[in-house]
Amino acid sequence: MTKIKTQLSNWQGVPFTNVIIEDVFWRPRLEVLKKVTLPACLTKCEETGRITNFAKAGGLIEGTFEGIYFNDSDVYKVIEGIAYSLMSEPDPELEAQADRIIDLIASAQESDGYLSTYYTLEAPESKWTDMEKHEMYNGGHLIEAAVAYFEATGKRKLLDVACKLADHYDDLFGPGKRHWVEGHEEIELALVKLYRVTREQRYWKLSLWLLEERGHGHGFGEIWDTKEWGPAYCQDDVPVRDTRRVTGHAVRAMYLYTAMADVVHVSGDPDFVDALHRVWSHTVERNMYVTGGIGPSRHNEGFTHDYDLPNESAYCETCAAIAMVFWNHRMNLLFGDAKYADVVEREMYNGALAGISLTGDKFFYVNPLASKGDHHRVPWFDTSCCPTNLARFLPSIGQYSYAQTGQGIAVNQYMNGEAEIVMESGLGVKLKQTTQYPWNGKIELAVEADKSDFFSIYLRIPGWCRGYKVKVRGKSLLGVEALTERGYIAIHRAWSQNDTIELELDMPVEIIQARPEVLENQGRIAIQRGPIVYCLEQLDNSRLSYDAYSFSAHETLLVDHQPELLGGVTVLKGKDGEGRPCQFIPYYAWDNRESGYMQVWIRKAEDKGLYSF
Amino acid sequence: MTKIKTQLSNWQGVPFTNVIIEDVFWRPRLEVLKKVTLPACLTKCEETGRITNFAKAGGLIEGTFEGIYFNDSDVYKVIEGIAYSLMSEPDPELEAQADRIIDLIASAQESDGYLSTYYTLEAPESKWTDMEKHEMYNGGHLIEAAVAYFEATGKRKLLDVACKLADHYDDLFGPGKRHWVEGHEEIELALVKLYRVTREQRYWKLSLWLLEERGHGHGFGEIWDTKEWGPAYCQDDVPVRDTRRVTGHAVRAMYLYTAMADVVHVSGDPDFVDALHRVWSHTVERNMYVTGGIGPSRHNEGFTHDYDLPNESAYCETCAAIAMVFWNHRMNLLFGDAKYADVVEREMYNGALAGISLTGDKFFYVNPLASKGDHHRVPWFDTSCCPTNLARFLPSIGQYSYAQTGQGIAVNQYMNGEAEIVMESGLGVKLKQTTQYPWNGKIELAVEADKSDFFSIYLRIPGWCRGYKVKVRGKSLLGVEALTERGYIAIHRAWSQNDTIELELDMPVEIIQARPEVLENQGRIAIQRGPIVYCLEQLDNSRLSYDAYSFSAHETLLVDHQPELLGGVTVLKGKDGEGRPCQFIPYYAWDNRESGYMQVWIRKAEDKGLYSF
Repeated sequence: MTKIKTQLSNWQGVPFTNVIIEDVFWRPRLEVLKKVTLPACLTKCEETGRITNFAKAGGLIEGTFEGIYFNDSDVYKVIEGIAYSLMSEPDPELEAQADRIIDLIASAQESDGYLSTYYTLEAPESKWTDMEKHEMYNGGHLIEAAVAYFEATGKRKLLDVACKLADHYDDLFGPGKRHWVEGHEEIELALVKLYRVTREQRYWKLSLWLLEERGHGHGFGEIWDTKEWGPAYCQDDVPVRDTRRVTGHAVRAMYLYTAMADVVHVSGDPDFVDALHRVWSHTVERNMYVTGGIGPSRHNEGFTHDYDLPNESAYCETCAAIAMVFWNHRMNLLFGDAKYADVVEREMYNGALAGISLTGDKFFYVNPLASKGDHHRVPWFDTSCCPTNLARFLPSIGQYSYAQTGQGIAVNQYMNGEAEIVMESGLGVKLKQTTQYPWNGKIELAVEADKSDFFSIYLRIPGWCRGYKVKVRGKSLLGVEALTERGYIAIHRAWSQNDTIELELDMPVEIIQARPEVLENQGRIAIQRGPIVYCLEQLDNSRLSYDAYSFSAHETLLVDHQPELLGGVTVLKGKDGEGRPCQFIPYYAWDNRESGYMQVWIRKAEDKGLYSF
Repeated sequence: MTKIKTQLSNWQGVPFTNVIIEDVFWRPRLEVLKKVTLPACLTKCEETGRITNFAKAGGLIEGTFEGIYFNDSDVYKVIEGIAYSLMSEPDPELEAQADRIIDLIASAQESDGYLSTYYTLEAPESKWTDMEKHEMYNGGHLIEAAVAYFEATGKRKLLDVACKLADHYDDLFGPGKRHWVEGHEEIELALVKLYRVTREQRYWKLSLWLLEERGHGHGFGEIWDTKEWGPAYCQDDVPVRDTRRVTGHAVRAMYLYTAMADVVHVSGDPDFVDALHRVWSHTVERNMYVTGGIGPSRHNEGFTHDYDLPNESAYCETCAAIAMVFWNHRMNLLFGDAKYADVVEREMYNGALAGISLTGDKFFYVNPLASKGDHHRVPWFDTSCCPTNLARFLPSIGQYSYAQTGQGIAVNQYMNGEAEIVMESGLGVKLKQTTQYPWNGKIELAVEADKSDFFSIYLRIPGWCRGYKVKVRGKSLLGVEALTERGYIAIHRAWSQNDTIELELDMPVEIIQARPEVLENQGRIAIQRGPIVYCLEQLDNSRLSYDAYSFSAHETLLVDHQPELLGGVTVLKGKDGEGRPCQFIPYYAWDNRESGYMQVWIRKAEDKGLYSF
């Protein structure tokens, strides 16, 4: 195995609490999230017995377990979402609801720390007998919620529950103790979060141990015992440090790599680094859709074979797109490379965002790239991981905007608003972005430092952007600092207290042709403008039936921003290969009007009159 | 042979005298043309005996013919250039010089109208014995100069000479008279010009007859008799109405098709229409360089086989690029299709413009797309068609900006300035363009009509542009009128006396990959931004040797306008495939500084980290 020598950047994230988003794109979505999505998810958790399960397990009320064994996790994820929402804006009512639920959760914890209401209520004697029953998966989400709620409110109750649970795991499992391969990864990344807030080394070490358990035949339970799935489904086929290929269930895989990146941030293990590079390449270079979607197969909710990217039957679970953000955000911090932030962006504006309706109360679990009109968002699912993942992903989206690089700031995502970042030196810097991104590629950055000082600002030039202009204090940058390094322009200088950067990213309409290996898309094109992937939706193109439109790679498109349409979208209008008018809307916005077909990859019209060169 | 049904648009050109160019790109070039190029060409014509030949032939002075048999044409082309210059701005001194030369020309005309100083002085008994000796080619340029000078000054002297010459041709040649296939086309398009100014039908009919003479075995003379060339060299291998393929000498071919388009404008002959469509496709789809250059071979100054587009040895005569403008301008008027104006633009900003130095006094005859550093512009050539073609092409460049479509105006080329156009209805319209084109894709058009009236404005959306925005009176166009038809947005409406159109053309950096058929460019990329094709020049990239740079199709480039460099150019800066800084400048501007290598097609760097789709 060749070692890839990579210097770790070990950038630090900038919490979303330091980032104020005031724009036309995300701000309304954050409002809807708080006003509609979180209450809707709470109501659903209540209605479906998810919350009551805790009261039952705690003996507060009578009754049997309701639902599926991983349902606890949804409640935790909603609490995590509430915590993020509270961090941005206090809401005593919402907080009171969370407190009430946390009391129920705490009541359900057994005296030794164990917490998973399914086993407590249904089969207490069968704990830890089936690695597929999401005991630690539930626990991981509890920990994430606990850390978030502690950071939001300073209240320790849920954090204490989480620590007690983690300590319970640590008692049972580890070197010289019992083996354990958790079927659905999640606990591993959660334990690193718990380590970060408690500074207890044992938590990240337990995470590392759990990671290292995989691939050595320690797994058992219903999944491992079936021929159909096998250990690759749970990423248990090879030791994690030998990982070369992305396999199995997509969300599990992403949570695993997220945890590996987290652990590398602490351990710096070069084997892990190499494995992460390999599996990242394998994921994005061979197994990612243009929307950022991953995991084409409904069968295993996951990966099949390389370049297998069917459109109509694309599974592309919303959670997997969100998990790609988690992983790629970590990779960006770890390696200081913009290509990971490119993927974060692709998911933010496409694969993940498509999962939620504009109204905030309907969700996609599955995100195909083509539909004949029979696929629609719904308010809830029996397995409702996707709505609750959106409920915690969206309110924390500001965290992907910036990174603190030590003696500098990396601007990863462009959105109108401002951020406060503190350098390692202690210098505070306020950055103010004025932009209409993602609809326009112009970004003005006001740099306000506590005092005039030397530091670096790294501006991400997105992978979709071929040409850019950049001025500092009204003057063009001309030297090497104007050229990208790992996808960033690095502006090193002594900044005065009030400086400006003007960045202009070319944001043309881009016609994308698939690699020849992607058989499904041969003879097809897709359209992207800036970070936004477009689709045809029937309502705008009702004259023709599904897949009747063709489009020439040399056709021109009118770029028209329609503030009243679909929450404000830039549509693209042109003529198809037969000269018929057609209109493209952002993919994320589909299925928000009357139902009909949708297509991302359009048949490519025969090119006429191409030049010879 | 399949007939292509094409409706003729028969748009009318808008003379450059109605177009004021006030921009940073063309205006300085027009100044240099007048101050430097025209005087330099006059001086060279004088020094090389080109002007004296007329005085000798007229018996005003003693002496033998000096130079090459087609040298008369250079003097005519300079007078044509002077005429255009006078139309834009009176210059009594320049006019006096022209008058003096015209007197010499008139003196050289024989009593029967014959005029070609080579034969008069050297071999009067051998007139019309060799179709390759450019007798009518010279005559054609005389006619073009005469028409221009008449239109510029109202003076008929040269026009009378021209008519007498044309009548002489008409006496000798035509149905029932002698056959003639002029080796180098030019007379045919000139005769249509003469028809347009005199309204004498016989001139365009003689042009048609001359066109129809080709391809029937009537040609003879040194070219036809050699095995090496054969009739295809002179486009005499097939009757013009059967033309399917571009062949032979590039300038000759272009002048032929220009004349065919001129004649169709009068005759509407569907066979000619079909032939023009076929040969246009064959030219631009299989035999045109990215710079617009045509005619790859030095050997025949012309075409070889399809997709034979070598870079270092590219011949790409400047005259051929200029002639492509002539032809494509006519095609645009004839068919009302922007794709022809696209080619005009490609030549204007690349293939043709490269022919002249920024100082206006040095010229390329040959325009390779790669040079190891040994190819430079010079002040003059023995065969100096290119400098004198530039001398008449540049001062009339405003004529390519607009067309009058009958009840509308087509905006073909964008340049800061204004134009006055009169509709068929008699309505006068002033259009004012405010733009930094070609460096920026934003164009503001002020529309000032004599009175509020209904008419159409057609805005060309260049072929290189995938996305555009357009507003009329500050409002987005949303209907079908906002979509392109034959490459134009057609805005039909009642215009008030003061209206505005805002057009924004996406002008991204475009990475061009050649068709697989172009073997020379396999594994290479070229860079274009807006209409400008870029190149690497050694001075900016001196660290490495010729062809040592590679470039990734996914690399980003800084777009930087440098007003002080090369007359003001937008340069593109980035890193090559090995991470070394590199800079691209517009191709037209190469070889204006210290000598060194140049390349348009750069080796393509291996793509790293491509996405799977």
